[in-house]
Amino acid sequence: MHTTESLRDIPPALQSKSLHLLTENTPNGKKVQILLEELRIANQITWETHLIDLESEEQKKDWFLALNPNGRIPLLYDNTPDLPICVMESSAILIYLHENFDKDKIFGFDTADERSQAFQWLFFWHAAAPIQGQTRHFSDRLGESFLYVNTRLRNEMLRIYSVLDDHLSGKHRYSITRDYIAGAGVGKYSIADIGTWPHVRAWRSLGFSHDDMLAYPHLLEWISRVADRPGVQIGISDKYDSEENPSLIVRGI
Amino acid sequence: MHTTESLRDIPPALQSKSLHLLTENTPNGKKVQILLEELRIANQITWETHLIDLESEEQKKDWFLALNPNGRIPLLYDNTPDLPICVMESSAILIYLHENFDKDKIFGFDTADERSQAFQWLFFWHAAAPIQGQTRHFSDRLGESFLYVNTRLRNEMLRIYSVLDDHLSGKHRYSITRDYIAGAGVGKYSIADIGTWPHVRAWRSLGFSHDDMLAYPHLLEWISRVADRPGVQIGISDKYDSEENPSLIVRGI
Repeated sequence: MHTTESLRDIPPALQSKSLHLLTENTPNGKKVQILLEELRIANQITWETHLIDLESEEQKKDWFLALNPNGRIPLLYDNTPDLPICVMESSAILIYLHENFDKDKIFGFDTADERSQAFQWLFFWHAAAPIQGQTRHFSDRLGESFLYVNTRLRNEMLRIYSVLDDHLSGKHRYSITRDYIAGAGVGKYSIADIGTWPHVRAWRSLGFSHDDMLAYPHLLEWISRVADRPGVQIGISDKYDSEENPSLIVRGI
Repeated sequence: MHTTESLRDIPPALQSKSLHLLTENTPNGKKVQILLEELRIANQITWETHLIDLESEEQKKDWFLALNPNGRIPLLYDNTPDLPICVMESSAILIYLHENFDKDKIFGFDTADERSQAFQWLFFWHAAAPIQGQTRHFSDRLGESFLYVNTRLRNEMLRIYSVLDDHLSGKHRYSITRDYIAGAGVGKYSIADIGTWPHVRAWRSLGFSHDDMLAYPHLLEWISRVADRPGVQIGISDKYDSEENPSLIVRGI
């Protein structure tokens, strides 16, 4: 799919025949960092991490746009096949890693029902994330003129939390309280949780208080449950912070 | 996964052992309607259509929330297996239908690269749709106080159009102009196009003019290319309009 020409300007650091993650320690980046760390702990994968300096807009430069026309991180650059494969969109990267590297299907499902459940909740959150982004953007804009916008966005975020809380509580469909988002019974920790958690855990950044969140007790418990996993803790750690690890920063030629 | 109790109140119309679509003729509904009509033309599928009266908020009632806790259409209720399967989120429904009913893989792909491309662009648009929804909501709110909000949202929509237009033009990565969003070479008509088109075609509803859209010529050509398909024309037709077909409206008991 690539022309030789379009890959001409790729940074040398990406030219090794391995799996490359281009990321920065944002919620979208953390999703993929977590799954990679989980797969590493399960002895399924090795990869190289490259950090993108978002402040200098490295992700809007031509070499990056040739890999991801949306100009966003994270990006997976799989240089293990003869023709390298670029994967943009954090949720699509989770599915790609699960389908191609999670050989034992540890973080996904086999049945049509459960497999679809994981996809459904990945899409559910993928549509919630832009609302969260707008809510955060407007949350510190005060004054009468932004009251309507802020109220509208905050109410939609609280509705989204309530959908997740109701789902985990078993309120509408299931007779039991669930531990994880997708899967039969109480559910199984999967890409659906990994795709949702880094955003949902950041509720404080939207200006919500702990009192606001007490309305969603199953969601709060789930946030803690996922946070306890070693792979999650490494996936959101300073290992992926470009100030801590300047040697991992990649730039165009 | 269902308890007998939670399915107790399901409308009798959904109890037949077939595939059921619960929809209304919105952009999200149209995605699934189009794929079903395309699969019907390809002799792959039969299903029953049920229309949901959004004005009376039927989709927020308990019987519907048991099938889709997000309280939104479209919803696919697959009552063909022993245990029925509920699928929410329009893009997840496209994948479910492709994986389980598109036996000849007409509307998707076999290779890991192309298969992921379809998923990537489905997610890309799934994150664009909420921005489109907010842009439409604020587009008719005039006055100084909404100028900032409107400008911000309109600029993001235009950026999203430019990403699609650049991709179709081959600007960043490919050496050739593409006909369709995913797939090798010029691409192949797939669930990626079906998941994107019903929203993108509605650019007028966001207040954009034809002059605004002239900056995205490849996108405009793609809109026309997809619009020419018979399956697409039936999928967005009055067949799915509840005022035209009141007998298809389903309600809880």
